Amino acid sequence: MADPAELLDDVEETSDDEVRQLRLVTELAGAIEDRDGPQIRLRLADEHPADIADAVEQLTWDQQQVICEVCPDVFNGEVLAELVDETRGDIIEALEPQQIADALEDLDSDDMTHVVEELDEETRAAVLAAVSDEDRQALEASLAFEDETAGRLMQREFVAAPSFWNVGNTIDHMRKAGEDLPDLFFEVFIVDETFKPIGSVPVSALMRSHRDVMLKDLMVASKAIIRPEDDQEDAAYLFEKYHLISAPVVDADGRIAGMLTLDDIVDVIQEENKEDLLALAGVNEAGQADTVWSSVRARAPWLFVNLGTAVLASAVIALFEGAIAQLVALAVLMPIVASMGGNAGTQSLTVAVRALASRDLTASNSMRVVWRELAAGTVNGLIFAAVMGVVAGVWFTDWQLGGVIAISMVITLASAGLSGILIPLGLRKMGADPAVASSVFVTTVTDVVGFFVFLGLAAIVLL
Amino acid sequence: MADPAELLDDVEETSDDEVRQLRLVTELAGAIEDRDGPQIRLRLADEHPADIADAVEQLTWDQQQVICEVCPDVFNGEVLAELVDETRGDIIEALEPQQIADALEDLDSDDMTHVVEELDEETRAAVLAAVSDEDRQALEASLAFEDETAGRLMQREFVAAPSFWNVGNTIDHMRKAGEDLPDLFFEVFIVDETFKPIGSVPVSALMRSHRDVMLKDLMVASKAIIRPEDDQEDAAYLFEKYHLISAPVVDADGRIAGMLTLDDIVDVIQEENKEDLLALAGVNEAGQADTVWSSVRARAPWLFVNLGTAVLASAVIALFEGAIAQLVALAVLMPIVASMGGNAGTQSLTVAVRALASRDLTASNSMRVVWRELAAGTVNGLIFAAVMGVVAGVWFTDWQLGGVIAISMVITLASAGLSGILIPLGLRKMGADPAVASSVFVTTVTDVVGFFVFLGLAAIVLL
Repeated sequence: MADPAELLDDVEETSDDEVRQLRLVTELAGAIEDRDGPQIRLRLADEHPADIADAVEQLTWDQQQVICEVCPDVFNGEVLAELVDETRGDIIEALEPQQIADALEDLDSDDMTHVVEELDEETRAAVLAAVSDEDRQALEASLAFEDETAGRLMQREFVAAPSFWNVGNTIDHMRKAGEDLPDLFFEVFIVDETFKPIGSVPVSALMRSHRDVMLKDLMVASKAIIRPEDDQEDAAYLFEKYHLISAPVVDADGRIAGMLTLDDIVDVIQEENKEDLLALAGVNEAGQADTVWSSVRARAPWLFVNLGTAVLASAVIALFEGAIAQLVALAVLMPIVASMGGNAGTQSLTVAVRALASRDLTASNSMRVVWRELAAGTVNGLIFAAVMGVVAGVWFTDWQLGGVIAISMVITLASAGLSGILIPLGLRKMGADPAVASSVFVTTVTDVVGFFVFLGLAAIVLL
Repeated sequence: MADPAELLDDVEETSDDEVRQLRLVTELAGAIEDRDGPQIRLRLADEHPADIADAVEQLTWDQQQVICEVCPDVFNGEVLAELVDETRGDIIEALEPQQIADALEDLDSDDMTHVVEELDEETRAAVLAAVSDEDRQALEASLAFEDETAGRLMQREFVAAPSFWNVGNTIDHMRKAGEDLPDLFFEVFIVDETFKPIGSVPVSALMRSHRDVMLKDLMVASKAIIRPEDDQEDAAYLFEKYHLISAPVVDADGRIAGMLTLDDIVDVIQEENKEDLLALAGVNEAGQADTVWSSVRARAPWLFVNLGTAVLASAVIALFEGAIAQLVALAVLMPIVASMGGNAGTQSLTVAVRALASRDLTASNSMRVVWRELAAGTVNGLIFAAVMGVVAGVWFTDWQLGGVIAISMVITLASAGLSGILIPLGLRKMGADPAVASSVFVTTVTDVVGFFVFLGLAAIVLL
């Protein structure tokens, strides 16, 4: 095996970005070594908050602590918002509540919530006590919604106008409102007299229209009106489907209460994709777990479940100890059947989980997909039955054995296709996340079926 | 096993959306049955192109063909752009080149390219011959860039202004340009006298500023300047990192030539995530493959590779036939070691692929991650060595056998952790996609190590 260090030295071929980042980390480490606050501040002055956060994440905890001591103001709101949850947690622990409250002040309400929601009870209470009354009310209102809902994600700053205004009224109003408007917005939401959103006008359309054009003539009807209790994943689906750039969130009476914007939705999409990917591989809690201990904790639970199912599969093998003792070739060949079944099952499962997540798999086409998976599994079974039948026949010069493994391959791959689709659909029906736990169930089915059919058939036919 | 139909009837608990969609498909199918063009048109008149595309995808090919015959104008540019590649390909085959050219006319250049790039040579040439000269030039320029680059993805319509303009000049200019501007835009790019982008002003900032404010006072310096030959994945990374909503694309001389917008980047992100997920599961070509045959084609190649590695693992077992014949318990237990190794390896691998994709795994931290994976694998190995040692000892009332499986578990899980990180890093170093093929290599290592260590140790210690 090659020397790890050698494999790694150019993991990132691409990028100036990487070189620039490496230089920043190195120079920062130097200034930290000297505990030179002004130098650290100077070095970071022109960097983007995202770059600062990336650099801080590359430092050791001791180095991060030095920054907290000699120049805590480096951790302004934007930098805190950019940090991964674990690092942010550590740093916030090391700062005073007042420092955190000051840092939060320049953030929009959604970013403020994002920083505060991950804090433990005690720190959260201290920070809430230190922020302005207005910010506290906004934060408490956001935190009242469940995690991963639209209410948590939305920002309370938005721009709305009645449909009877014209472009001139709207621009004049915005110029007057100035500072009270959100930092960035892409659409003006059009509301009726009860403040219910009925459509939107892209800011670019306002921009190129004459002052006397009526908003109602520029308006596009709202495709998506989101409620604060909606799952963020459902909101993301609507953004993707209708190519939205922002969307209104309404309160219980249907009045506009906030907005979601596409840049926040991108984070949701990435988070959900990551959760699915890691769940399929049996890694818990999607954390940016960076320590040995957190890695073990994230993985041991599913390894434990896997151990249980592996023992179950072994118990099936134990039923046929006698057959194996008579014909050791069975022990040599049986892992092939199980391995092919496990792989085919994982393929079906992954396609199904992906299709469920993207809502390509729906009530109206699911029967068709079940049949397709069964058929595809069977066809692949027939292909590999032929190949493996010949391989086993030649290897052990026993064509009956070749026949047994061929038949087992067809049955195992067909059941792999079927369980790969039915198990995630079943989990979904029971209200569980189809990505979590599916893998284990599917490979249990394929292992048990594979071992049982192969060894059972062999015991009947060969012995 | 439950009746499939029953499992499926409420796959989508959520949504009015789903019910609405189902109704649309049913009513559409009725009108198609009657070959009633006006009725089909009427039913679709108020639907969003995304909903029309979703409904069309749920129809059979025969039903789709009827629409192509009786009311081909339903397939306007926006609907075509929304269809998945396979369905779009089928439908375009059934339309006349002139019909396609007419449909493309109302699209922005990026969407036009998106539709045309998937066509086969012949259809593409016919469509290019039928569009306007201006569209043809734009299309040819876009298609000259490689697939999956920023040049393919960008739109040629954008808004730029010199930094010495003020807000008033800019708004007046846009009102005059009117129709020539892109349908939607979110930023005005600020260019220097050589037309190089130096920054941008969000449209919302223009909107709330007085007419005499200078653009240079509103400008944010450009964080990302993208070249057309850049990989779309690199562009997506910059959008995510800096929370961009749009970004300029420059030509070889550094002059602005087009722009990328976040809504297109969302599609890229989803595409790349899907590719990684399916590649890890050994499913090729990320197609929305919906037929049995395309499913088989997408999966058989990796099953074939897997068969090869499974035979290799069996060959390792065959080395120890004598030991298994003497002690059949070895055949019963050996799949447990291999299964645990395979699972632990897949966990490490998935975390590594994810970290590489999100660029959390870089040259500066990769050594640390390699050690972490080795350590986490070893710790999990020790945990499951203890558990499995006891289980095997009790099961076969043979504590030496328990000891052998315990030691094998530690070695196999440590090598699983190590191969789970080194293999994707190695593939990356060789310029290959770390998501593709990693799984097979990792499970080969864990199978071979697992069987060899367990059976080899058993042969030495127990026999």
